[in-house]
Amino acid sequence: MGLSRRIYHQLVDIEDIIGIIEKFIKLRPLGIESVEISCSVGRVLAEDVKAKISIPSFTRSLMDGYAVISDDVAKAYEDNPIRLKLAGKVLAGEVPSITLKRGECIEIATGAPLPFPANAVVPVEYTRRKGNIVEVYRRVAPGENVDYIASDLVQDQIIAWKDDIITPSMIGAIASAGVKKVKVYRKPIVAILSIGNELTPLGQDLKYGMIYESNSSMIMGLLSSIGADVRYMGIVRDNYGEIKEAINKALSCSDMVITIGGTSAGLEDLTYRVLSEYKPGIIIHGIKTKPGRPTAISIAKDKIIIALPGFPISCLTAAQLIVVPIIRKLLGYKISRSRVITAELVMKVPGALGLNRLVPTIVSNIDDKLRAYPLLIHSGAIGKLSQLDGYIIVPPTKEGLKDGIDVDVHLYEGASLAEAVFIGSHCPLAEQLLLSLKKKHRIKIVYLGSLAGIRLVSLNIADFAGSHLLDSSGEYNVPFIKRYRCRDIVVIRGYVREQGFIFRQEHSSVINDFEDIIKNKLRFVNRNRGSGTRLIVDNLLKELAYKYNKSLEEIRNELIGYNYETTTHDGVALIISKKIADVGVGLRFVAEKYGLSFKPIGNEVYDFIINKKSLKKMAVEEFLKLIKDELPALIRTFPGYSLHKNSGEVIYEC
Amino acid sequence: MGLSRRIYHQLVDIEDIIGIIEKFIKLRPLGIESVEISCSVGRVLAEDVKAKISIPSFTRSLMDGYAVISDDVAKAYEDNPIRLKLAGKVLAGEVPSITLKRGECIEIATGAPLPFPANAVVPVEYTRRKGNIVEVYRRVAPGENVDYIASDLVQDQIIAWKDDIITPSMIGAIASAGVKKVKVYRKPIVAILSIGNELTPLGQDLKYGMIYESNSSMIMGLLSSIGADVRYMGIVRDNYGEIKEAINKALSCSDMVITIGGTSAGLEDLTYRVLSEYKPGIIIHGIKTKPGRPTAISIAKDKIIIALPGFPISCLTAAQLIVVPIIRKLLGYKISRSRVITAELVMKVPGALGLNRLVPTIVSNIDDKLRAYPLLIHSGAIGKLSQLDGYIIVPPTKEGLKDGIDVDVHLYEGASLAEAVFIGSHCPLAEQLLLSLKKKHRIKIVYLGSLAGIRLVSLNIADFAGSHLLDSSGEYNVPFIKRYRCRDIVVIRGYVREQGFIFRQEHSSVINDFEDIIKNKLRFVNRNRGSGTRLIVDNLLKELAYKYNKSLEEIRNELIGYNYETTTHDGVALIISKKIADVGVGLRFVAEKYGLSFKPIGNEVYDFIINKKSLKKMAVEEFLKLIKDELPALIRTFPGYSLHKNSGEVIYEC
Repeated sequence: MGLSRRIYHQLVDIEDIIGIIEKFIKLRPLGIESVEISCSVGRVLAEDVKAKISIPSFTRSLMDGYAVISDDVAKAYEDNPIRLKLAGKVLAGEVPSITLKRGECIEIATGAPLPFPANAVVPVEYTRRKGNIVEVYRRVAPGENVDYIASDLVQDQIIAWKDDIITPSMIGAIASAGVKKVKVYRKPIVAILSIGNELTPLGQDLKYGMIYESNSSMIMGLLSSIGADVRYMGIVRDNYGEIKEAINKALSCSDMVITIGGTSAGLEDLTYRVLSEYKPGIIIHGIKTKPGRPTAISIAKDKIIIALPGFPISCLTAAQLIVVPIIRKLLGYKISRSRVITAELVMKVPGALGLNRLVPTIVSNIDDKLRAYPLLIHSGAIGKLSQLDGYIIVPPTKEGLKDGIDVDVHLYEGASLAEAVFIGSHCPLAEQLLLSLKKKHRIKIVYLGSLAGIRLVSLNIADFAGSHLLDSSGEYNVPFIKRYRCRDIVVIRGYVREQGFIFRQEHSSVINDFEDIIKNKLRFVNRNRGSGTRLIVDNLLKELAYKYNKSLEEIRNELIGYNYETTTHDGVALIISKKIADVGVGLRFVAEKYGLSFKPIGNEVYDFIINKKSLKKMAVEEFLKLIKDELPALIRTFPGYSLHKNSGEVIYEC
Repeated sequence: MGLSRRIYHQLVDIEDIIGIIEKFIKLRPLGIESVEISCSVGRVLAEDVKAKISIPSFTRSLMDGYAVISDDVAKAYEDNPIRLKLAGKVLAGEVPSITLKRGECIEIATGAPLPFPANAVVPVEYTRRKGNIVEVYRRVAPGENVDYIASDLVQDQIIAWKDDIITPSMIGAIASAGVKKVKVYRKPIVAILSIGNELTPLGQDLKYGMIYESNSSMIMGLLSSIGADVRYMGIVRDNYGEIKEAINKALSCSDMVITIGGTSAGLEDLTYRVLSEYKPGIIIHGIKTKPGRPTAISIAKDKIIIALPGFPISCLTAAQLIVVPIIRKLLGYKISRSRVITAELVMKVPGALGLNRLVPTIVSNIDDKLRAYPLLIHSGAIGKLSQLDGYIIVPPTKEGLKDGIDVDVHLYEGASLAEAVFIGSHCPLAEQLLLSLKKKHRIKIVYLGSLAGIRLVSLNIADFAGSHLLDSSGEYNVPFIKRYRCRDIVVIRGYVREQGFIFRQEHSSVINDFEDIIKNKLRFVNRNRGSGTRLIVDNLLKELAYKYNKSLEEIRNELIGYNYETTTHDGVALIISKKIADVGVGLRFVAEKYGLSFKPIGNEVYDFIINKKSLKKMAVEEFLKLIKDELPALIRTFPGYSLHKNSGEVIYEC
């Protein structure tokens, strides 16, 4: 048995997908249903709607006042009232039984029918009533304050057109013209199933090595929000027979099937085999985009099966790009309504030769300028997923996009820009402050690590950041700001977090320092290079090497797992609690969170980096206030956290 | 009994409305419910959602390939492969049972857990397998192709925040972190009832003087589209007891009540009396806007009752302005999401002293420039309602807005701009051509009459227009274009429509000309001054005056109803068919439509006026093609219509 790399022989351009599908199946609405007009917003009309009546259906008054023959009051002025005989009264909903004679008037309410041959209405405020006589103090022109029969729209006139998307104001017009129900296209039924042995249903306990089956919820949310009728078919194991049976079942109860996962070039790849057995079978096998490339489309008789990749960002991107336009066509939409905004690209983005590279993007608005930050993350990333605003496209013909140019950002469904953006290292205490801020302001929070926070403040993507970067000088954060020549930045001292060895209770007696760890051959989990914690580890190992007159290299080799890294405090604790390794270095807070033992080594500092341009934003102003007012009380509830002597002070400015 | 004019003593500013209501009732979500995450798009979170697990929950491979200890392959190059012993295999969803030794590797699939202490994955394409030995042709750095445990997000980290509006990508993150259900704010229940004796339910026959009850459908559509749970309570007559009972019933089954109609200063005005009897009762009685002024707000214990005006445009405007923000607050939205675009105002707009005047507006896009055309129509207009894009606001402090300035257009819910705009006179044949065009292009069609069509083409609001304006010279349309000094216009000759006397069958024997009509004292319905038909009428009356040596004035006085006007062909026919008058002048087509008799007098011409700047638009290009290709066949199916000798030709250009 050997590994084989899947080769995508004929990757398809995004623009060609619809055309290829339509060689087999015409993408048009699947049927028509009749709905009450009051429940029809957002549906697409399957018919031209004609007025059943002309509007107004009778000549009516637009005012409360007196219906007159305008010639009778042609000489009425404030100092020369004309006296008319009151001949009757007509209210809205009544039929005037009287024909007006010259010299007469009729009391009339707004919306009441004008009696023949009255041709104008004198508003009540220009009249005085004396018994049966009305004095008119102003002339009115023919037609004044009158709404003529059929002047607004005429019977059989089309008031809403086939393929129009119904809006509330359109409903007003349709209903006014006497139409109670309209024919709209029926919603396509989309069956969704997920494939993979590693998938666990939401709500169940998660075993090691398994992941939650989340893509179906995301895709169901997306497709139902654009008007599809979605049906969840559950999780299917990586087994030929089960996949085949599940897809057949899905085909039998839907207009279109979406499978998620099972399409990457993995060790066991069965979905393709099943899809290729339908007639005419797989018509698209890989598209020219990254992410989203391993998307496949198969046709089973007259139904489409779309196989989406399983990594969440790939899955969402491919769904936005391929499934949404198909469903819009099935819903009867003529025009794709993907929202695009223009923003300045703050860093260069590499392309993907021969592929449309769709790069997930965050958009900021600082100093009234929109800027786009392309997130070069892998498609399995989840934590950033909900913070993405949209994506930019690097076309297949380009090696990449330069920074400083204007780019189109295609917004995801439901995306709306934040007031202010926080980027930096995740810290539960900082998160608590952000939580308070979120109550009043719409903040985007993206945890990309300390260094990204500093960089993105200086690129005007982030309004503020949180960072705990230790320099070899022993100083936190400021040396990095100087090194990267950042401008317009204020650094506010945050607080101190206690670091130490983290291990399971069973090793309490044998861990005091690295000497113990090496001696007892305990498995170590290290932090990533560049992290402050890694610097602490390396400093301790240097001391040990010095003590035994060994090279640092020798000491590192003696420590089992020195090269086994992870990137977060929680990662260290989790690996230890799951017994994959025995000991690591991290925060006391995290050790307690996972019920592990802790032996202190030292402290690290967490600071807030503020963009000077953002100081005028209410959200940032409020955040500074929170550091001052709420941090001191809050910190007491966080084990392993303490105030710094300079907490809340500006420690650097440039 | 005398008429009295309602005086709005304390009109309230739009911005103050929420504040005044909140003195009595806090506008906040009314409750919390738990929903499946897949059904939660657009709902507002009532809780911070924390990750149940760290993600990834194990260190995993991002590639298909071989898990290695990176130091083992530090010297692997294309011409110097490193040979490793294959120690096993791990798939996604499996737990690795093996601990790797130096010099070993393990076959690994994307998403599978990395065995300890492997710290990198060599992609399969840089390897060659020979039995139990794997040759590695490229070095990998520590961490390469590895997704570290807890690197994406950590357990208990907040992944979605209280008051966030849930998006599909947020669902992806929430579900990936193991959360199946979330708490969201429940939808407010809004009861809607309509008040008025003139109202007829949709689906019933419309009696003379009555109108269809359409506002409730429109407001239900609007409010359900923003997330409210709407309940229709029906139509209530103008009767104190019935109104009181209906509002009480609505209060008992809802969170908020909306009444429509019964709030203008009409002859019979009962709604205010009922509303003022609740405790604390009416808190707002009239707002500083036009339209929308007669809106009232009452509080009954802890529930809001909003009384909206009955004219559709007033009703929709007041609902957008007042009801939508209140419901958004009840839904838990922090931010109002009304969409605003900037456009150049093409004509000046008068304000309304002391009131915010909200002027319904159409937006066009010609030559890549957005322009706003304010429609100075009364609020009862229906035909234009569905074509409105939004409204502009003339503040109370301004006498008006000048043309040429940039204004904010507040878009209505669901509004989206058209590709091209047709404005002009309604004609069933032109409509048929537009219908063909609509199949392929998104066209806005607004019937504002011939003159408006010409003017709005020259103001770059309309891309094309239809007009049948007869000049006293006998020439159609072109003299008006010259008189108004329009530029960049092409006139295409359209077709000819037959005009004549329209009357009921019973008068067939007595109507040959105006002499007969006067002699038999038949009641005439005239067309509005400025219409081509009115010119025909006046020319015939002039001939009659000449014949009998009378003044035109004398002849006009002898014709009963000469001053009784209406503004459309359909209006003339309807008035005759409903026996309000006996005879008029209009199109043969319309006479046949209403089953009336017809006696020909002459012809009129209907032309198409094209904006030269719009000739490059695909929609306009297509329309010209339709005139050429489809008009000749189509016209044969329209009684009373014929081609002109110059049909389809450019008859004027400037």
